[in-house]
Amino acid sequence: MKCRVCRGPAVIDIRRHNANFCQEHFLRYCRTQVEKTLKEFSMVKPGDRVLVAVSGGKDSLAVWDILLHLGYEATGLYVGLGLGEYYDVSGRHARRFAEERGLELIEVDIRGTYDIDVPTAASVTGRAPCSACGLSKRHVFDQATLAGDFDALVTGHNLDDEAAVLFGNVLHWQSDYLGRQQPVLPAGHGFPKKVKPLVRLGERETAAYCVLAGIDYLVEECPMAKGNKHLHYKAALNLIESESPGSKQAFYFGFLRNAVDLFSEQRTYSEPEEQRERTEPDDDVGMLRACEECGATTNSELCAFCRLVRSTAGTKPVPIAMTRKRN
Amino acid sequence: MKCRVCRGPAVIDIRRHNANFCQEHFLRYCRTQVEKTLKEFSMVKPGDRVLVAVSGGKDSLAVWDILLHLGYEATGLYVGLGLGEYYDVSGRHARRFAEERGLELIEVDIRGTYDIDVPTAASVTGRAPCSACGLSKRHVFDQATLAGDFDALVTGHNLDDEAAVLFGNVLHWQSDYLGRQQPVLPAGHGFPKKVKPLVRLGERETAAYCVLAGIDYLVEECPMAKGNKHLHYKAALNLIESESPGSKQAFYFGFLRNAVDLFSEQRTYSEPEEQRERTEPDDDVGMLRACEECGATTNSELCAFCRLVRSTAGTKPVPIAMTRKRN
Repeated sequence: MKCRVCRGPAVIDIRRHNANFCQEHFLRYCRTQVEKTLKEFSMVKPGDRVLVAVSGGKDSLAVWDILLHLGYEATGLYVGLGLGEYYDVSGRHARRFAEERGLELIEVDIRGTYDIDVPTAASVTGRAPCSACGLSKRHVFDQATLAGDFDALVTGHNLDDEAAVLFGNVLHWQSDYLGRQQPVLPAGHGFPKKVKPLVRLGERETAAYCVLAGIDYLVEECPMAKGNKHLHYKAALNLIESESPGSKQAFYFGFLRNAVDLFSEQRTYSEPEEQRERTEPDDDVGMLRACEECGATTNSELCAFCRLVRSTAGTKPVPIAMTRKRN
Repeated sequence: MKCRVCRGPAVIDIRRHNANFCQEHFLRYCRTQVEKTLKEFSMVKPGDRVLVAVSGGKDSLAVWDILLHLGYEATGLYVGLGLGEYYDVSGRHARRFAEERGLELIEVDIRGTYDIDVPTAASVTGRAPCSACGLSKRHVFDQATLAGDFDALVTGHNLDDEAAVLFGNVLHWQSDYLGRQQPVLPAGHGFPKKVKPLVRLGERETAAYCVLAGIDYLVEECPMAKGNKHLHYKAALNLIESESPGSKQAFYFGFLRNAVDLFSEQRTYSEPEEQRERTEPDDDVGMLRACEECGATTNSELCAFCRLVRSTAGTKPVPIAMTRKRN
């Protein structure tokens, strides 16, 4: 197995590209794919200040590392979700990455800030844990990006994630979710710009990137995600991919090329913060206004997050409190 | 396990409907589902004369049987495809069903009529066997339906088939195929009306229908279909269905409700005979005219089937020769 670029011994094969790479050229391949994606979808431009949502897992640390390599000023944002030991460990990975590289990491702990944690919020409101977690993270992401006046929020969603979400949305043919499934959500209506620069890299590649770039990431998946439908969608797509390498990429990029506009023309506006919530829309479509509690854009009196906080903690949410640590 | 209708001992459970049935009420359930489908999609109406494409397998014999139970005048059409012993056996099942019930069965043998067979046609033209088979069958179906002046051609595509085809089309986002994936294709442009009355029944149900109705069908799948992508799509959807019963039905009927129109408005016209061919369109989109050989509607000099015959047999196709046997 030889490297496609230098013909030296390869360390990884990428079946869908029918290509093998050595360590050096694999890292370069990943960075080039991200650079191409940033440009293709006008995600960010040189000189932009970006905030990277960092969980301590392979995807978020890889995208942070790659953006730094490409010359971007990238600050990290770690959200403590009150998920017990798992999130203690994940936080350590995020902090160590930042410290070793002298990077700024903003930390928001939802227990300290809002007096809630994901398991309690989920059980009190009857939501799936992944739903309560996603809602909380998106709220903090938005608020921190706006508060810090960043040009964009970066998340580590990879090709496998996006293909699985797309598959889930397609299985139910919900036009509003389909019309919103883009690798870039533009700023507007009080929401920051959100970008997903890893959509051209599969999760096997982001893991390999971390290993080969010497990034120590949290390998375990979140224990609360067990039974999540998302994992079944991934398994089903993996079955197809193993028979026909490239299927996921064709599925996701074919959608962006041929179909997303059909659905986005159809849809009426609803909160982008619900973008990844397929089965449990938090608000009906309606007029946008400012949440009476936190000022976030919403289409009811309280935004979905403040409703979650109110039912869970019974307290009024306070404006976001952030720990900024410049290493 | 008790029958949902009579509370007697049940013989089958339908997980997606959360229902169990005894023999009598399961057969009635299947017939009711078909009756509902015929009406919902204006497939056929009482008094119509229909031609049922019969392979000798569970789906086609089930739909033939159900249509007879619902009072339709239904003639069978069996196409001999030169697939060796498999098709000899399948033909015997079709003939026996007709003979036992005193039904008319039209037989067309493509070797005798066109001097081709599927394996040879596939290898000469470089098509996948399922592609050459599908093209040949659709041609004979169309011609026989028009020649016999039937009101509609009925095929036995079930929910699993349609969901798998839809999944394949969605994986590639080909708007023209998606826009055409309807349970009814109306007559027009020289093509007969084609209907799929089994889209509300899964393949486990059509098999159970045959067993419980005492219909002796060919159990083996066609040996040429091995490796067909369609089977991978079915396996992937089965994975989802086993976790969330009803997923396939939601996927297929959600598409008909929310999405098919978006794609059909987009597409330009091309031959309906290509409806199930996703990866290998036989003709480009263009003006429709009559095939110079056989008179079928096409958009090039020769229709796709006559081109197949010409490359395979080297002979001009003759007008369709049918053996009509009224039992």
